[in-house]
Amino acid sequence: MDYTLLNQINSIEDFKRMDERDLPNLCEEIRAFMVENVAQTGGHLASSLGAVELIVAIHRVFDSPTDKIIFDVGHQSYAHKILTGRRESFHTLRTEGGISGFPKREESAHDAFNTGHASTAISAALGFARAMRLQGKPGMAVALVGDGAMTGGLSFEAMDDAGNDKLPFVIVLNDNEMSISKNVGGLTQSFASMRTGRLYNAIKRGTVHALEMSRAGKWLGRHVERTKNRIKHFLIPNLPFEDLGFTYIGPIDGHDVRKLIRYLKRVREMNKPVILHTITTKGKGYSFAEEDPERFHGIAPFSVDAGEVTAQKSVTCSETFGNALMELAKKDSRIVAITAAMPSGTGLSEFAKQFPDRFYDVGIAEEHAVTLSAALAAGGMRPVFSVYSSFLQRGYDQLLHDVCLQNLPVVIGLDRAGLVGEDGETHQGIYDPAYLMTIPNLAIYSPSSMQELKEMLALALKRSEPAVIRYNRGTLPDVSSVNPISFGKWEIIEPIQPITLFATGTMLSLAKKVAKERGLGLVEMRFFRPLDYELLDVCKKQGIRILVIEENIAAVAPEIALYCSPCIVRSAAIPNHPVAQGTIVQQRERFGLTEEGLQKLIREMEPL
Amino acid sequence: MDYTLLNQINSIEDFKRMDERDLPNLCEEIRAFMVENVAQTGGHLASSLGAVELIVAIHRVFDSPTDKIIFDVGHQSYAHKILTGRRESFHTLRTEGGISGFPKREESAHDAFNTGHASTAISAALGFARAMRLQGKPGMAVALVGDGAMTGGLSFEAMDDAGNDKLPFVIVLNDNEMSISKNVGGLTQSFASMRTGRLYNAIKRGTVHALEMSRAGKWLGRHVERTKNRIKHFLIPNLPFEDLGFTYIGPIDGHDVRKLIRYLKRVREMNKPVILHTITTKGKGYSFAEEDPERFHGIAPFSVDAGEVTAQKSVTCSETFGNALMELAKKDSRIVAITAAMPSGTGLSEFAKQFPDRFYDVGIAEEHAVTLSAALAAGGMRPVFSVYSSFLQRGYDQLLHDVCLQNLPVVIGLDRAGLVGEDGETHQGIYDPAYLMTIPNLAIYSPSSMQELKEMLALALKRSEPAVIRYNRGTLPDVSSVNPISFGKWEIIEPIQPITLFATGTMLSLAKKVAKERGLGLVEMRFFRPLDYELLDVCKKQGIRILVIEENIAAVAPEIALYCSPCIVRSAAIPNHPVAQGTIVQQRERFGLTEEGLQKLIREMEPL
Repeated sequence: MDYTLLNQINSIEDFKRMDERDLPNLCEEIRAFMVENVAQTGGHLASSLGAVELIVAIHRVFDSPTDKIIFDVGHQSYAHKILTGRRESFHTLRTEGGISGFPKREESAHDAFNTGHASTAISAALGFARAMRLQGKPGMAVALVGDGAMTGGLSFEAMDDAGNDKLPFVIVLNDNEMSISKNVGGLTQSFASMRTGRLYNAIKRGTVHALEMSRAGKWLGRHVERTKNRIKHFLIPNLPFEDLGFTYIGPIDGHDVRKLIRYLKRVREMNKPVILHTITTKGKGYSFAEEDPERFHGIAPFSVDAGEVTAQKSVTCSETFGNALMELAKKDSRIVAITAAMPSGTGLSEFAKQFPDRFYDVGIAEEHAVTLSAALAAGGMRPVFSVYSSFLQRGYDQLLHDVCLQNLPVVIGLDRAGLVGEDGETHQGIYDPAYLMTIPNLAIYSPSSMQELKEMLALALKRSEPAVIRYNRGTLPDVSSVNPISFGKWEIIEPIQPITLFATGTMLSLAKKVAKERGLGLVEMRFFRPLDYELLDVCKKQGIRILVIEENIAAVAPEIALYCSPCIVRSAAIPNHPVAQGTIVQQRERFGLTEEGLQKLIREMEPL
Repeated sequence: MDYTLLNQINSIEDFKRMDERDLPNLCEEIRAFMVENVAQTGGHLASSLGAVELIVAIHRVFDSPTDKIIFDVGHQSYAHKILTGRRESFHTLRTEGGISGFPKREESAHDAFNTGHASTAISAALGFARAMRLQGKPGMAVALVGDGAMTGGLSFEAMDDAGNDKLPFVIVLNDNEMSISKNVGGLTQSFASMRTGRLYNAIKRGTVHALEMSRAGKWLGRHVERTKNRIKHFLIPNLPFEDLGFTYIGPIDGHDVRKLIRYLKRVREMNKPVILHTITTKGKGYSFAEEDPERFHGIAPFSVDAGEVTAQKSVTCSETFGNALMELAKKDSRIVAITAAMPSGTGLSEFAKQFPDRFYDVGIAEEHAVTLSAALAAGGMRPVFSVYSSFLQRGYDQLLHDVCLQNLPVVIGLDRAGLVGEDGETHQGIYDPAYLMTIPNLAIYSPSSMQELKEMLALALKRSEPAVIRYNRGTLPDVSSVNPISFGKWEIIEPIQPITLFATGTMLSLAKKVAKERGLGLVEMRFFRPLDYELLDVCKKQGIRILVIEENIAAVAPEIALYCSPCIVRSAAIPNHPVAQGTIVQQRERFGLTEEGLQKLIREMEPL
């Protein structure tokens, strides 16, 4: 494609000058540009394709950065980046030093608020609205929120609070029909138009009695009711929104850019809290993504013509975990699986098909997922909640308060533990060992091979205590067999030496190489909790120098240092700073989690 | 009072045999018994007085432990404890070794699920309902939930998920008019009766069209609408509940025990998800508590006749914090305060009066409180969120993801940090240093006197980074003056010696005594983050033996051990196990945070 229109846009001002009649074509160019680039870099394509017109219309009507545009989750913001001065750097998306796949304040004044996890945008918009009012600053806050994000409790808490004052802010609901049934999209446009029209407003002013006054009113009344019953709760029925002080408008076609502009202009003039409900198609405009939006949600580099990922695909830890769980579930009817809107990402799709009655997808609701698991366990089941490390941060209190203080046998499959690469700061799985090790009664398993992953899951389910099994994004080595897993016991891979490496997970292969090369001892830490105190006692007695290698914020190293004090203990880990995007390999290099980096640390530990 | 009826009840079976006509009198006896006992032990009186009839009625209709009765928050469960075999031990409430102020599975088979933090009960009830169905077990799950707990996102997430299957479970909404406006209580009882009647059900079956068919229908239709507009969102309008698959019944008088029984019997027979909305009075039956329910929410031992707390009251850390914040807010218009439904507990009541436009009570919604604060800061304000340590656990992800990854100047006043005494396991503020120290960019201040508390707040607001100031329940020493606080610097109280104590907060006075007695060095750790690396370098160089004294799960000690390795570093801290109730003094004794305990540790550190 030529990008005749797009090439004229180097800043938001260029975009503002463009003739409105050109916008539908501009949207097509943005789409083609996105597909072309994301095919190279990988990224969240389907969501971003679906939000092009919404973003174009929002930027047309609102004035960023005076108006604050906030993207819930944020991975749908590609069109926003392209329009706000980042067209030329867009090919660096998600690469080291390039532009982020999520809004980043440090990247542009137009990125009002960093996002990554779901359901934060309404809270954020409310905060901006309040700050602007208190300071007498002009501007409105606009939150672009997907329907999935509305299932998170945080969205509800924010809506509830927003009712306390009637500040002008706008929620644009991007309803991409992924969580809401298809028939919503079939509502007539005339109905939608009517809802902002004079009749509708007259009726609203007169309250419900007006519905009985005219034939049109009766018709509308019935349709309002019918809509309510057909469309998913909370969003609509519209009345809760209106009780909360929001004016509800919609649903309207989220791909008709000129209509969106008309509606948003009205919304802007209303100068009060408004929710505009739009219907979009995930993957819009790229046939492969429209047909299989889940596959194109977050995708690796792919061929544009074939719609196929270019790199060879190997079996991931998620899949291994999901398959192992299915095997165990066949033999133990107490096993149930829980996901927070990530059946595919966490490897549970097949489980969901095989055991539909024993599978719960609770929506983007990690808090509830954990407390629900606690009660399932208290009721005699063996719940397994599969979740990404960075998303379990949402369930910290529930894990502590509901699962662990009660010592209930809930198993957490902690996926994407460690460095995650291209998603960057918000998605790093590097905090969990540190925050999980604060929680009483919790066992933390750390497999270093696919076989261990499977055996640890079986062991955790055989025992009856809270347990987390943490594994990385991608793969672990496939080994023919492993020594049996004994609870709380670490594995001596190379005999204890005056300098011994302690490693686990993805770091074990690396440590093996280094230990071999330098003739060092090597211990595989199969558990982060409990520590293998018996083995540590031996090391302490012998005055062993220990290098602890972790692909996370140092968590085991400080514990070992305290327990083994005054042994010399050193740590190779991720420093406690936000970790920006790059490949996992690049990120490891940044922090010296490489052969060379470890060699350097070891040389420093050697007796002079 | 004679307790003629109550004295016959030693088990739930005794209660079940009682004549239903005696129940109103039994409720009065339970109330008097509660007031008499709580006056001695202290406790959550007002909520428990308000829930007597609800609990009596629930136990009359449902069969615990086959049916699972779950108490949201749990501090309203005193009547439940008295009825289920704990009448004779009730005088030990909240004391060491006595019965807990919250439901505890280990205490009774009738305590189905431990609670303490708000908004968990619906998740839990759903979990039990699912577990019972999967196992083909009989029984229903009943959640008794206050209106405050409904503002928590977790409640919403659970309601949303409950829509996925239509299991028989009951939410009894205990609406004590504390958060919902008075006029709700004025609804006619006839209206409430009607809603369970045949007409109503016929109309429901016929959908909304039926409303137009008869005069009665029209009248009802209008009333349904009117109710919706008058009663707080989410709970009611009732339609969202009904869309979620819940049948809504109410509101009815929550102090009419025989009516409650009638309604609950019907609810039980309905065999599907039902929400029964009841209106109660917090503090019911004890005039002082009815008049000032907030003061009697959680109260220390008091005189029954005078309604006054017996112990002398000194100025608490919360009050000092709140007052200092007010002074600063007078000079800096950017300062705003946020609370999650705890204006009084966190010392912000006066701030709320003085600066109503700069004060936000967001409900029991810690997640939203944190993200809202992040956006207020991004928008140019200086938000201060005051919250108990154990409740900030709910905002861990938001603090990491929204505040700290963006490095926004949000200040958290972290109250009830350290041991909290009588509330026990669920409320201990002993986890925060460990989980907070995992978060990048976050400064953690730890004052040891009231003066430091004030100065640290001023310093945190002067700087522009995320900060937590953690202080204990109760008081800190009032000293005439302190050396100026320098960011990231610790204070040498007694010159560094071969053995030096490192202490902070409540532990400093204790450490001072011990250091004096044994001629040891003493460092006051004024910050948990950053560590004072300069001072640690000195200690490391000199091979100082360090004893770190913390009133929390060891958090600083392991960090120092790693940094100072191979120095000898020992830890005096709370072990990582649930910490049961008792006085704070008793809890410190349990873990050796006493002169004697420290002396013992020091002797072990001395060279042989």
